[in-house]
Amino acid sequence: MAVELLLIIVAAAVILACACAALNYFTTKKLKEGTERMQEIASAIRVGAGAFIKYEYKIVSVIGSIVAALLIIFVSWQTGLAFIIGALMSAGAGFVGMKIATYANVRVTNAANETRDTGKTLKVAFKGGSVMGLCVAGFALLGALLIYVIFGIACHQIDDVLGNTKPIWTNWTKLDAGFTMTLSGYALGCSIIALFNRVGGGIYTKAADMGADLVGKTEAHIPEDDPRNPATIADNVGDNVGDVAGLGSDLLESFVGAMLSGVILGCEIYAHQSLTNIANGLIVSEALLKAMLLFPMIFAGVGLIGCVVGIFYLLLVPLKKNTNVHMQLNLATWISAGISVIGCFLLSFFLFKGHDAEVLKQVLGFKAGNFSPWIAAVLGIAAGIIIGIISEHYTSYDYKPTKGIAKSSKEGAALTITEGMATGMISCMLPVIVLGVAIYGSYAVAGMYGVACAAIGMLSFVAATVSVDTYGPISDNAGGIAEMSFLEPEVREITDQLDAVGNTTAAIGKGFAIGSASFATLSLLCSYIYAFRGEDIIKGVINMISLNVVDPLTLVGALVGAAIPFMFSGMLIQAVAKAARRMVEEVRRQFKEIPGILEGEAKPDYENCIKISSQGSIKEMRIPCLVAIAIPVVSGFVFGPEFVGGLLVGAIISAIMLAIYTGNAGGAWDNAKKYIESGGVEGVKKGEEGYDAVHDAAVVGDTVGDPLKDTVGPSLDILIKIMSTISLVMVVLFNKYNLFDALHIV
Amino acid sequence: MAVELLLIIVAAAVILACACAALNYFTTKKLKEGTERMQEIASAIRVGAGAFIKYEYKIVSVIGSIVAALLIIFVSWQTGLAFIIGALMSAGAGFVGMKIATYANVRVTNAANETRDTGKTLKVAFKGGSVMGLCVAGFALLGALLIYVIFGIACHQIDDVLGNTKPIWTNWTKLDAGFTMTLSGYALGCSIIALFNRVGGGIYTKAADMGADLVGKTEAHIPEDDPRNPATIADNVGDNVGDVAGLGSDLLESFVGAMLSGVILGCEIYAHQSLTNIANGLIVSEALLKAMLLFPMIFAGVGLIGCVVGIFYLLLVPLKKNTNVHMQLNLATWISAGISVIGCFLLSFFLFKGHDAEVLKQVLGFKAGNFSPWIAAVLGIAAGIIIGIISEHYTSYDYKPTKGIAKSSKEGAALTITEGMATGMISCMLPVIVLGVAIYGSYAVAGMYGVACAAIGMLSFVAATVSVDTYGPISDNAGGIAEMSFLEPEVREITDQLDAVGNTTAAIGKGFAIGSASFATLSLLCSYIYAFRGEDIIKGVINMISLNVVDPLTLVGALVGAAIPFMFSGMLIQAVAKAARRMVEEVRRQFKEIPGILEGEAKPDYENCIKISSQGSIKEMRIPCLVAIAIPVVSGFVFGPEFVGGLLVGAIISAIMLAIYTGNAGGAWDNAKKYIESGGVEGVKKGEEGYDAVHDAAVVGDTVGDPLKDTVGPSLDILIKIMSTISLVMVVLFNKYNLFDALHIV
Repeated sequence: MAVELLLIIVAAAVILACACAALNYFTTKKLKEGTERMQEIASAIRVGAGAFIKYEYKIVSVIGSIVAALLIIFVSWQTGLAFIIGALMSAGAGFVGMKIATYANVRVTNAANETRDTGKTLKVAFKGGSVMGLCVAGFALLGALLIYVIFGIACHQIDDVLGNTKPIWTNWTKLDAGFTMTLSGYALGCSIIALFNRVGGGIYTKAADMGADLVGKTEAHIPEDDPRNPATIADNVGDNVGDVAGLGSDLLESFVGAMLSGVILGCEIYAHQSLTNIANGLIVSEALLKAMLLFPMIFAGVGLIGCVVGIFYLLLVPLKKNTNVHMQLNLATWISAGISVIGCFLLSFFLFKGHDAEVLKQVLGFKAGNFSPWIAAVLGIAAGIIIGIISEHYTSYDYKPTKGIAKSSKEGAALTITEGMATGMISCMLPVIVLGVAIYGSYAVAGMYGVACAAIGMLSFVAATVSVDTYGPISDNAGGIAEMSFLEPEVREITDQLDAVGNTTAAIGKGFAIGSASFATLSLLCSYIYAFRGEDIIKGVINMISLNVVDPLTLVGALVGAAIPFMFSGMLIQAVAKAARRMVEEVRRQFKEIPGILEGEAKPDYENCIKISSQGSIKEMRIPCLVAIAIPVVSGFVFGPEFVGGLLVGAIISAIMLAIYTGNAGGAWDNAKKYIESGGVEGVKKGEEGYDAVHDAAVVGDTVGDPLKDTVGPSLDILIKIMSTISLVMVVLFNKYNLFDALHIV
Repeated sequence: MAVELLLIIVAAAVILACACAALNYFTTKKLKEGTERMQEIASAIRVGAGAFIKYEYKIVSVIGSIVAALLIIFVSWQTGLAFIIGALMSAGAGFVGMKIATYANVRVTNAANETRDTGKTLKVAFKGGSVMGLCVAGFALLGALLIYVIFGIACHQIDDVLGNTKPIWTNWTKLDAGFTMTLSGYALGCSIIALFNRVGGGIYTKAADMGADLVGKTEAHIPEDDPRNPATIADNVGDNVGDVAGLGSDLLESFVGAMLSGVILGCEIYAHQSLTNIANGLIVSEALLKAMLLFPMIFAGVGLIGCVVGIFYLLLVPLKKNTNVHMQLNLATWISAGISVIGCFLLSFFLFKGHDAEVLKQVLGFKAGNFSPWIAAVLGIAAGIIIGIISEHYTSYDYKPTKGIAKSSKEGAALTITEGMATGMISCMLPVIVLGVAIYGSYAVAGMYGVACAAIGMLSFVAATVSVDTYGPISDNAGGIAEMSFLEPEVREITDQLDAVGNTTAAIGKGFAIGSASFATLSLLCSYIYAFRGEDIIKGVINMISLNVVDPLTLVGALVGAAIPFMFSGMLIQAVAKAARRMVEEVRRQFKEIPGILEGEAKPDYENCIKISSQGSIKEMRIPCLVAIAIPVVSGFVFGPEFVGGLLVGAIISAIMLAIYTGNAGGAWDNAKKYIESGGVEGVKKGEEGYDAVHDAAVVGDTVGDPLKDTVGPSLDILIKIMSTISLVMVVLFNKYNLFDALHIV
C-alpha cells in the first residue's frame, strides 16, 4: 500500500528528532560549568530536582501499575499496554528534558560570565531547551509508532475488520471498541504523567516560591535568590519541576490527544457517517479512510522535521553580541511553523487527492475539496497565535490593562486585587471568540474531522514552542545561580534579558497551551459521543452525533461538571498554601536553630527544604487529582454515559474560562509589580517616599496571582484532558454497566 | 368553567396583600421619628434615595419606552403592552418598598431608643420590610391578573384557538407565538426594572461604601457611619437602593419568571407532546391543559395568602423584651412556607384529579399521579433551603472555612485573599449538586413541567423571604442613624443585634435568589427551545425537545455564552471601582475645601456625594447592561436560534458558578473580618500588638469581597434571567430572520 509508505516520514522524523536531542544533550553537558561555587549550587539544584522526580515517579509507578492492571483486567490488554507505553514516553520526555535543564542552567551562567555575549549565551540556553522540545514531539510520535507496530493499529487492524466482515459498519463496534480504547489508553498514559508533573510540579514550584518569599523577603528582608535563604534552592528546583517537566508533559499530552482524536474521529466518522449516506450511494472508500487515519500522524511527523530545521537554524546561525533575542526566537518558531504549514499543504493535497468529490463533500463535509484539512489546520495555528497575542495584551505592561492595575496599587492592595480580577474576567471574552471562530470555521470547512485537524495544526510545531518555553526557566535558573555565586552584575543583566524575553514567549506559549487543550478536548468529546451514540446511529434512533443538553440527566451533568474546575482550582490553591506554610515553618526553624545563617557564616540546610516541598506537593495533589479522575468514572457507572457527556461539556466550558481568567489575572499582577519596579507609574519611583506602600500592594497582587497562573491555570488544561481521556477509555463500559440503566430509572 | 373560579383565590390574594401592605405602610409612617437630628438625617437619606430612584426611573422610562415601541412594531402590540405592565409593576413595588424603608429606618432607631425593647423594635423593622415583601408578590400577581383580564390569556386565548381550529397542534404556532411572546413580554418588563435596580443599585451602594471607607477609615481615620464623612449619607442611601429596591425587583422578576415559565411550558408541552402521542391515542384534554395553565398562578396566590398569615403572626404575636430574633423571623417564614406547602398539596390534588392516568404518566411524565406537581414543588423548596444552609456554612464564622480565612489573615493580605478565593471556588460544588438533585428529581417526578413547579415552589413564599431580607437593611440603616444622632450605645446594640440576624438571613436569602434564578432560567430555557424547535417536532425531524451541544454552532454559542458572565462581572467590578474613585475625589475635595469639617464644626455637602453616586452608577451600568441585552439579540439575528440556545446554556452554567463563588467568597471575607473584630482568632485581640496588621489584612479581603457579593453576585442572577427572557421574546423572529440562514451557511 503506497500510502502507508508515508509512515516512513514519521519514522524518519522520530529518529531525526531523537538523534538531534541526544546531540544537543551531550554537547550541552560537555560545556564548562564555571567556578566551584557555581558547580556546587547547580549540583544542589540538580540533585534536588532529581530527588523530586524520583520520588514522584516512584509514586506514579505504583498508581500507574494499578491503573494498568485495572485496564488490562476490565478493558483489554491492548489498552493496558498502550497505557504503559504512553506513561513511559511522557515520563521519559519529562525526565530527559528536566535533567538537561539542570545541566544547562549553570552552563548558561558560565557562558554569560565568560563571553559577556548575549547571542552566545542565548544559544546555550536554547540548546538546553531544545532537548525538551525535541523529546516531547519525538517520544510522543515514537510511542504512536510503537503502538502502530505492536498492534498493527492504524490501517492493519482496520484491514482485519474489513477483511473479516464487509461492509465495515455492520461490525463497527469491534473496530470501535478495540481501536478507540487502545488509542485512548495511550493518551491516558500520557495524561497521568502530565497530571503528576503539572499538578505536583505546579504545587511544588509555588509552595517553594511563596515559602521563600514569605519568610525571606517579608520577614528577614533578604533579596530574592539569596543563598542565605534555605528555600532558595527549592525555589530554583521548582522552576525545573513545574515549568520544564510540567509544561513538557502537558504539551506532550495535548499533542498526543490531538493526534489520536484525529485518528479516532476519522475512524468513527467513517464507520458512522457512511451509514447515513448509504442510501445516496455515497460510501467512503477504504483508501479515503486510510488517508484520514494517516494524515494526523504524518502531519505531526512533517511538523517535527520542520521544528528540527527551525531549532538548528537558531543554533547554527551566527549571532551578534547584542542580538535581538526576541526576534531570533520568533524566527526559529516561524521557520518551524512555516515548514509545517507547507508540509501540511502538500500532505493534504496528495493524501486526499483522487477521492470521490461528492463523498468528500457530503459525507466528510470537506467544503474545499482535498485542501479542507489544510485550511482547518491553518485556522488552528492562527487561533493559537491570536490567543497568545491577546494574552500578551492583557498581561504585558506595555498595554493599558496591566498599567491600570499598577496604577491602582497606589490606592492599596484591595484595589490592586479588584482591578486584576476584573481584568482577568474581562479577558475571557476575546480568546473565546477566537476559539469559536476557529472551531466553527474548521468545522465548516472540513466537518468534525476539521476540528481535530485544527488541534493538530496548533500543535504541529510543538517541538519549537516547547523549546522556546523551556529556554525561559533555564535562563531564570541561570540568573539565580549568577546571584548566588556572587558573579558580576553584568552577568545577571544578560540572563535577565534572556529571562524577560522568556516571560513574553511564555505568555504566547500559554495561549497555545489553553487553545490546544480546548481543541484537543473538544475533539475527544466528539469521539466520546461517537463512541456511545454509535449504536443509536445504527439503530436509526438518531442520524447524527448529538448530546441533548436539555435532557435533564445531561443538564445536571453539565452543571456538576462546571463546578469541578472551580472545586479543583480551590483545592489546588489551598494545596499550595498548605505546602507553602510547611516551607515557611522550616525556613523559620532554620533561621532560629542554625546560628550564623543570616550572616552568611553557616550554610542553610537546602536538602530539607527540598524534601519538604517534594513530599508536601505530592501529598497535597492527591485529593484534587483523585477527584478529577474519580468523578467521571464513578458517575459514569452510576448515571451512565449521557451524564458523563454533560459532565465533560460543563467541565470543558468552565475550565477554559477559569484557565484564561487565572492565567491572565496572574500574569497581569506579576507584570504590574514589574512595571512599578521599572518606575513606569507616575509619581512612584524607587527610593522615593511612598514607593514602598505602592510596591507592597503590588506584591500582594503578585503573591495572589502566583498560584493562579502557575499552578491552577496549567492544571486546568490537564484536568479536562484527563477527564475526557478517561471517559473515552471507559465509555464502552459505562454504556454496558450503569446503575441508572440497571434500575430502569432513565 | 369551574376550574377558572379558582382564579378568585388569586384575586383575593392580590387584594389581601395590597391591603395589608397599605396598612403596614401607613401605620409605620404614623410612628414617631425621634429627635430633630434623627429626623434631619433620616430625611437626608430619604431625599437621597428618592433622588436616585427618580433619576433612575427617568432614564428607565426613556429606555423602556423605546423597547416597548420596538416590541409593538416588530413583535406585537400585546407584547409591548404586557412589557409596559411588567415594568410598571416592578417599578411600583421597588418604589413603594424603598419609600417605606426610608421611613421605617429612623422609626426603628426611635423605637429602640424609646423602648429599649428588642421585640418591639423588631416589629417596627419587620413591619417596614413586610411592605416590600407583600408588594413584590402582590404586584407581580396583580400584573399577571391584569394580563389575564386584558388579553384573556391563560384559558381564553387558548379557547379561541381551540374554537377556531381543532386540533390545536395544527395551529400551535398561533397559540405559541401569541401566548409565549405576550407572557414573556410581561416578564421582560419586570426584568428591565430589575436590571436597573439591581445593577445600578449594586454599583451605587458599593461605590458609596468603598468611597466612604477608602477616605474615611483609611485616610481620615474616622469610624464608619461618622457624620463628618460626606459620603456617609450616600452609603446609607445605598443600602436602600441596592439591598431594598434591588433585591425586591430581583425576586419579583424570579417570581414572575418562574410562574410564567410554568404557564408557557404547560402550554407548549400540551401543544407538542400530544403530537408524539397521538398514535397511542394519548391526548391531553382541554381540562388538563387548563389545570396546567392555572396551577402556577393559583399556587402563587395560595403562597401569598400563607405569607400574609406568616407576616401578621410576627406582627401580632406578643414578644418578650429579649426575644430570640432569629427564631421569630424563622417562625414567620416557616408558617408562610408551611401554608404554601399545604395549599399546594390540596391544589395539586384537586386540579390534577380525574384526568386520564395514562396521559398524566406518559405524556406529561407525572410519575406520582396528581401529586406530582406538589412533590416537584417541595423538592424546589427543599433545594432552596439546603442551598441557603450551605451558603451559611461557607460564610458564617461559626464554621471552619471562614475561621480559616480569618486565621490566614495573620500571614498577610495575600493569604487572606487566596484562602477566600479558594473557599469560594470550593463552595460551588455542593449547591450545584443540590440543584442537580432537585432538577433531576422534579423532572423524574413531573416531567419538564416539574422543573417549573420546583421554581414556583421555591418562590411561593417570596413575600415572606423578601420581608425578612428587607428588614436587614432597614436595621442596618437604623444603626447608622443611631450612630450619627449620637444616641446611647444601648440603642446601637439593639439595632446591631437585629442587623446581625439580618446578615444570617441574608445568606439564606441569597441561596434562594441563586437557586430560584437557576430554576427560573432553566425553565425559560426549555420554553425557548420548545418555541424554536416546535416546527421540527411537527415535521417529525425530532421527537423531543433537544439542543445538540456538539453541533458546532451551538457549541461555539455555549463557549461565548460562558464568557459573558465573566466579562459582565469584570465590567461591573471596574464600574464600582470607577464610581468609588469619583466619590473618593469628592470626599477629599470636601475635606480640603470646607474648613472645620473634620472637627465637626461645618456640615459636609451630603447632597453632592449622593448626586455623584447616582450619576456615576447609572453611567457605569450602561455598557455592561447593553452588552447583556445586545449579545443575545444581535447574535440571534446573525447566527440564528441554535447559537442563542448554546449561548444561554453557556451563560446560565457559568453565571451560576460565578454567582455562588462571588457570593460565598465575599460573604466569607466579610465575616472573617468580623470574626477577627470579635476576638475569635487566637492571639489576635483588639488593642494588643499586632492586631492592626491582622485586621488590615482582613479589611483588604472585605473590600475585595464587597463588590463581588453585593454587586456582581446578585447582578449575575439578573443577567441570565434577562438574557433568557429577551431571547424568548425574540425567538420567533430569530427563527424567521437570521443572516446565517439567509446566506445558507448552516
